[in-house]
Amino acid sequence: MEKLWKNNLRNVEPYVPGEQSKNKDIIKLNANENPYPPSPKAIEVLNNFNCSSLRFYPDANAVDFKKAIAKFYNIQPENVFLGNGSDDVIALCFQSFFNSEKPIVFPDITYSFYPVWCNLFKIPYKNHPLSSDFRINVEDYKEENGGVIIPNPNAPTSLGEGKEFIEKLLNYNQDSIVIIDEAYVDFGGFSSVELIDKYENLVVVGTFSKSRSLAGMRIGFAIGSKELISVLEAVKNSYNSYTVNSVSMAVGTASINDKEYFEKTVSKVIATRERITYELRKLGFTVLDSKTNFLFATYNGKNMKDYFEWLKEQNVFIRYFNIPKIDNYVRITIGTDEEMNVFLDKTKEYLSLN
Amino acid sequence: MEKLWKNNLRNVEPYVPGEQSKNKDIIKLNANENPYPPSPKAIEVLNNFNCSSLRFYPDANAVDFKKAIAKFYNIQPENVFLGNGSDDVIALCFQSFFNSEKPIVFPDITYSFYPVWCNLFKIPYKNHPLSSDFRINVEDYKEENGGVIIPNPNAPTSLGEGKEFIEKLLNYNQDSIVIIDEAYVDFGGFSSVELIDKYENLVVVGTFSKSRSLAGMRIGFAIGSKELISVLEAVKNSYNSYTVNSVSMAVGTASINDKEYFEKTVSKVIATRERITYELRKLGFTVLDSKTNFLFATYNGKNMKDYFEWLKEQNVFIRYFNIPKIDNYVRITIGTDEEMNVFLDKTKEYLSLN
Repeated sequence: MEKLWKNNLRNVEPYVPGEQSKNKDIIKLNANENPYPPSPKAIEVLNNFNCSSLRFYPDANAVDFKKAIAKFYNIQPENVFLGNGSDDVIALCFQSFFNSEKPIVFPDITYSFYPVWCNLFKIPYKNHPLSSDFRINVEDYKEENGGVIIPNPNAPTSLGEGKEFIEKLLNYNQDSIVIIDEAYVDFGGFSSVELIDKYENLVVVGTFSKSRSLAGMRIGFAIGSKELISVLEAVKNSYNSYTVNSVSMAVGTASINDKEYFEKTVSKVIATRERITYELRKLGFTVLDSKTNFLFATYNGKNMKDYFEWLKEQNVFIRYFNIPKIDNYVRITIGTDEEMNVFLDKTKEYLSLN
Repeated sequence: MEKLWKNNLRNVEPYVPGEQSKNKDIIKLNANENPYPPSPKAIEVLNNFNCSSLRFYPDANAVDFKKAIAKFYNIQPENVFLGNGSDDVIALCFQSFFNSEKPIVFPDITYSFYPVWCNLFKIPYKNHPLSSDFRINVEDYKEENGGVIIPNPNAPTSLGEGKEFIEKLLNYNQDSIVIIDEAYVDFGGFSSVELIDKYENLVVVGTFSKSRSLAGMRIGFAIGSKELISVLEAVKNSYNSYTVNSVSMAVGTASINDKEYFEKTVSKVIATRERITYELRKLGFTVLDSKTNFLFATYNGKNMKDYFEWLKEQNVFIRYFNIPKIDNYVRITIGTDEEMNVFLDKTKEYLSLN
C-alpha cells in the first residue's frame, strides 16, 4: 500500500552537531566551551533552587532576568530579548526579520547554521567570499539585500572587526535589518551594543555559553531597538511562550550580576590564548589574531587533517573542517593552562614525527 | 525618512500567555499546574547537580533521558523525541508533518495555540465544531485533509475519548499524519502510545508540566514510529540542536524513573477532582466528566464571568474564556484539598450572594 502521508513530511538535510565524547580523560578543545566553571554565585543559586516552585510555569516575560541584562549593558529591559540558547534566538531573528524576496547576505566562511536556517525557513541567501587573509570585505555588503548577518568576531576564523567597519556596514544597509552575532565578543572584540540607539535596524545577539560557562544551561539573548525586540517577542509568543526555564533564568541572573568573576575568567582565557598563539608561532604555525576563545591555525607544508587525527588518538580533541578554503586549518579552543601545556607538548611531538 | 527595513518585519498577532501573579497568598487554580512538588528524587538531582559540567553543551541526542522515557512506556529510544516543553514539540511537529496544500483539521474549541502555529507557519486549517455536549464527532474527520491534531483529553472541556474513537480516527485518516496531544492523559485518559506500532502515521505528544509537576523545567516529548521521529530530529537539528538543557534532562530522568511518586500524586489529584465534581454538582453546577487535572463547569442562570471576577477579588484565581460557545463556563484547576476547600467555601459564599 502506498503511504500517502509520507508526502506531507518535511524534507531537510539534518545538521550534525559536533561530537561529544563520554570519555572523561580527554582534553576537550573542540567545542569552544569555557575551561572554567560558571560563577560560584550561579552555582549557589542552582544548588539552593526552590524546587517546589518548578510546578509553576516560568515567567514568560523573564522580567528579573531582563532587568539584570539591561543593567549590565546599560540599556532598558525593553531592549532585551531572551531565548533557549543563541541558536534559538538567531533562528527566531531569521523568521522575524528576513521576510524579503531579496537574498540575505553573509560571508562564505562563517557559522555553519546560517545556511541551514535559510533552508529551513525558505529564505534566499547569498555568500560573499572572505579575502585570502580571511577578512570580511565591507564593500561587498553595499548591494541591495534582504538582510545581513555577520558574526563579530567571525568563526571559525577568530578575527574581529572594529567600530568603523560596523558603522560602515550599517550605513550601507539602512534598508535592511543587520544582525551582529557576538557569541565570542567578550574575549576582546568590539561590541555593537553601544550602537543600538543610533541604528534602529541593528540587532546584536549574545550567549551565556562561552564567556559565562553556561553552555549546558541554554541561554541566548538579542539586544536592539524596542521596535525590533517587540517583533521578536510577538514571534516567540506565537511559537512557544516559555523558551527559558525557571532554573536557567535564576542561574543566568546570578551569573550576569557577578561581573568580577566574569572579568577574571575572561582575562585568564585571553592570557592563555596570547601565550599559546606566541608558542604556536614559535613552532612554525600560522595563527590568526584571535579575538575569541579559540585559535584558527595552519602549518605550511603539514597536513592539518592528519595532525587533528593524530591528536585525537592522543586524547586531545581539536576541530577540523573539511570545507574548501579552510581544509588545511584547525580550530583550537583555549583550555586551562595545564590543558594547553599538554596540547603544546603533543603538538611538539607531532612536529618531531612529521 | 521612510524606513524600508520595516517591510521585512514579520507581522504576527502576539499570543498572550495566561497571567502569572507575584502575590504568594493567592490560590492559583488558573494554569492547570500541579499542586504537588516534583518527585523528591528529581529535587535531589537538581540540588546535587554537578554545576561545573554546565560549561559543556548538553547531549544533543539526550541518550539517557530517551532511554528512561522508552523504559517507562515500554518502547524503544528511537520512538522518542524531546523538546523544550510540549509547545516546542508540537510547533516542530506542525513544521515537520503539516506540509500539504490541504487544510489540517482540529476541533473549534481546543488548545488555543493550534491556530497560532498555523498562522506562524502558514499552514491552512479548518475547524470542526464540537457537539452541543462538547464532544468531538469522529465522523467529521472522515474528509480529506492535510493532517489532524486532537488533544485527548481535550482542553478546556476536560473530556477524554477512548481507544475505539482513536482507532476510528486513525482508520479514517490513513493518508495524513495524526497528532494526539496528551498533555492531560495521565489523569485518567486513554493513551494512544500503545498504537504507535499499528499506525505508523500516529504521533503522540506528552509533557512533564502537568502530571510530573515540572512546568518550570520545560520538558515535552513526542512518541511515534522511528520514521516520524527521525523527521522530527532532522527538523529540530536544523533549528537548534540543544533544545533540552543539561539540568532539565537530569531532573526529567529522575522524575520519570520515580513511578511510585508519580502514581501517588496523580491519584491524589484524581481523588480531589472527583470530590470537587461531586460537591459542585450538589451546589447546582453543571460539571463535565473530567479526565484531566481541571474541571469545566457552568451554572444555569448565573453569570460565570462575574463569578470568576468575584473569586479573583477573593484571591482565588480560576480561568474564564471570553470565547463564543464557552463564554458562560469556567475552568478550575485541581489544587490541594485545602485549596479546594477554600475554593468551595468561597463558591458557596458567592452563590448565597447572587
